Amino acid sequence: MAKEIRNLDNADCLITGGLGFIGSNLARRLVELGARVTLVDSLIPEYGGNLFNIAGIEDRVRVNIADVRDEYSMDYLVQGRDFLFNLAGQTSHLDSMRDPYTDLEINCRAQLSILEACRKQNPRVKIVYASTRQIYGKPDYLPVDERHLLHPADVNGINKMAGEWYHILYNNVYHIRAVSLRLTNTYGARMRVKDARQTFLGDWVRRLVDGAPIEIWGDGTQVRDFNHVDDVVDALLLTATTDDANGLVLNLGSDETINLRDLAALCVEVNAGGNYKIIPYPADRKPIDIGDYYADYRKIRGKLGWQPRVNLREGLKRTLEYYRQYKEHYW
Amino acid sequence: MAKEIRNLDNADCLITGGLGFIGSNLARRLVELGARVTLVDSLIPEYGGNLFNIAGIEDRVRVNIADVRDEYSMDYLVQGRDFLFNLAGQTSHLDSMRDPYTDLEINCRAQLSILEACRKQNPRVKIVYASTRQIYGKPDYLPVDERHLLHPADVNGINKMAGEWYHILYNNVYHIRAVSLRLTNTYGARMRVKDARQTFLGDWVRRLVDGAPIEIWGDGTQVRDFNHVDDVVDALLLTATTDDANGLVLNLGSDETINLRDLAALCVEVNAGGNYKIIPYPADRKPIDIGDYYADYRKIRGKLGWQPRVNLREGLKRTLEYYRQYKEHYW
Repeated sequence: MAKEIRNLDNADCLITGGLGFIGSNLARRLVELGARVTLVDSLIPEYGGNLFNIAGIEDRVRVNIADVRDEYSMDYLVQGRDFLFNLAGQTSHLDSMRDPYTDLEINCRAQLSILEACRKQNPRVKIVYASTRQIYGKPDYLPVDERHLLHPADVNGINKMAGEWYHILYNNVYHIRAVSLRLTNTYGARMRVKDARQTFLGDWVRRLVDGAPIEIWGDGTQVRDFNHVDDVVDALLLTATTDDANGLVLNLGSDETINLRDLAALCVEVNAGGNYKIIPYPADRKPIDIGDYYADYRKIRGKLGWQPRVNLREGLKRTLEYYRQYKEHYW
Repeated sequence: MAKEIRNLDNADCLITGGLGFIGSNLARRLVELGARVTLVDSLIPEYGGNLFNIAGIEDRVRVNIADVRDEYSMDYLVQGRDFLFNLAGQTSHLDSMRDPYTDLEINCRAQLSILEACRKQNPRVKIVYASTRQIYGKPDYLPVDERHLLHPADVNGINKMAGEWYHILYNNVYHIRAVSLRLTNTYGARMRVKDARQTFLGDWVRRLVDGAPIEIWGDGTQVRDFNHVDDVVDALLLTATTDDANGLVLNLGSDETINLRDLAALCVEVNAGGNYKIIPYPADRKPIDIGDYYADYRKIRGKLGWQPRVNLREGLKRTLEYYRQYKEHYW
């Protein structure tokens, strides 16, 4: 049984990357739960922020346009918060290889400065950090649990690994309560679908809605697990509102593993139309291909009772409906 | 049987941190072996660089004062080299907690820019990176092998972990041959003895030579392993001159484990004088205390035949003799 998400009524919440995919879905839930919500986002065009993501709740959240690399703004913005959902990040693996310094500034240096700001200005805040399966690199075994060695396969993975550990360190040394969730492929309404920067599924969804063929890279046998964003929001809120997981890293994941070819077929079926083609792995992505991945998420299930509730068929259906309705805001 | 160190006659070698403890000992050996040696060092007063470390070989090496954070200089300096011994680093755990940004700049950003320089200017170089046991944090089990999880206990450990992985990544993705050695406590002639910034043994050696009591922090039961710098130089040269270990991380270590109280007694005995006192662990170091540590170094022994040859008694004897003779250059 999942623990209940404790009272967030009137809780003061800061979300970095708050106009992004996961951040905006989290903001919607927090608003429903009566929290006071401030969103920090830099709206960098290539990243996931989109003002339409908060359509309908604009008047119930505070939007603060700022970059997490801006130490002075962050130093002010963390003050007085009960919760910090630290979701801002550079997430493109390819971009991290082309420009490793920008990835370093966002995923390492800014994380350090956010934590330093909390240490100095607000040591009683509780932080949930969004880490990623990317830090495991190519799995040594499946499913991947939290004791799996970290051997990241791109600069982004290395920097996210460091970013995660700063949080754990500040929990252990300075007692600033922090938890790191290692997210697997997350999908759902409000994800970036312009391109495959955030997730290949975004690219697929756009093509399905446009009636264009889906492209599967490789041979289509790569296995993955997927979490619908509503389940990820559950996990963020559960870890925020309990102290049982402080200082821990916890995998998210799903038992509903699927290979990309079957996923494409499922997408076409749920979409009631479309087709897919298999194309060779792009040369520039080949060295960072990690083969099969799916997570063992028994640790968070055991600690907090979390498990995914939205199955893939239902999640894809909702996602496609969302983008069919609101495509002009995302294309 | 150790592999033989292959011909380095006329090899073009660059050593970052070349005026430091390990760098200068390596430079001496390389000069003996007929290599052409360039030392890069910034001579930051708090770090380990010391011009006296190359006394006697000044005319046989090229010294280039530069900071590894200086991208433009590094971009030039890596050109045409056969070997890059990448030893420059911020090594103080305490300094990394007080000023995490400087540690980040040296141990992460500069490493990225050195690797980018190699990728662009000299992809055929072979790199040996000096990593550290510090990235393991407090051991889960002993001896610590390379499959032990990394859970660093200070900012320095996190950044060194990232620095190591950049090297492995550039080996795997760009085929710039690189190996990372995870050094344990290294000691010997030319280490920094002004204070305990580099190693507590430096502080001990200075006190022994001065006739002052050694200070043991904690209860003195903490177990450690130690490598004499000559053995570390062996390991650097072996990994540089073979391609069997490319892309690997390899622990150094020693079977001669000892607790700090016994080590202090041994120091006093070898020094033929002195005494030690046990004092409580300094409050600012307590959260980053890692308890016992010693390495399993079977991987490098199996791959390259490396093992330590200088025992602790002999190594301490030589070290004390060195500082008694040259103390005015180190105090």
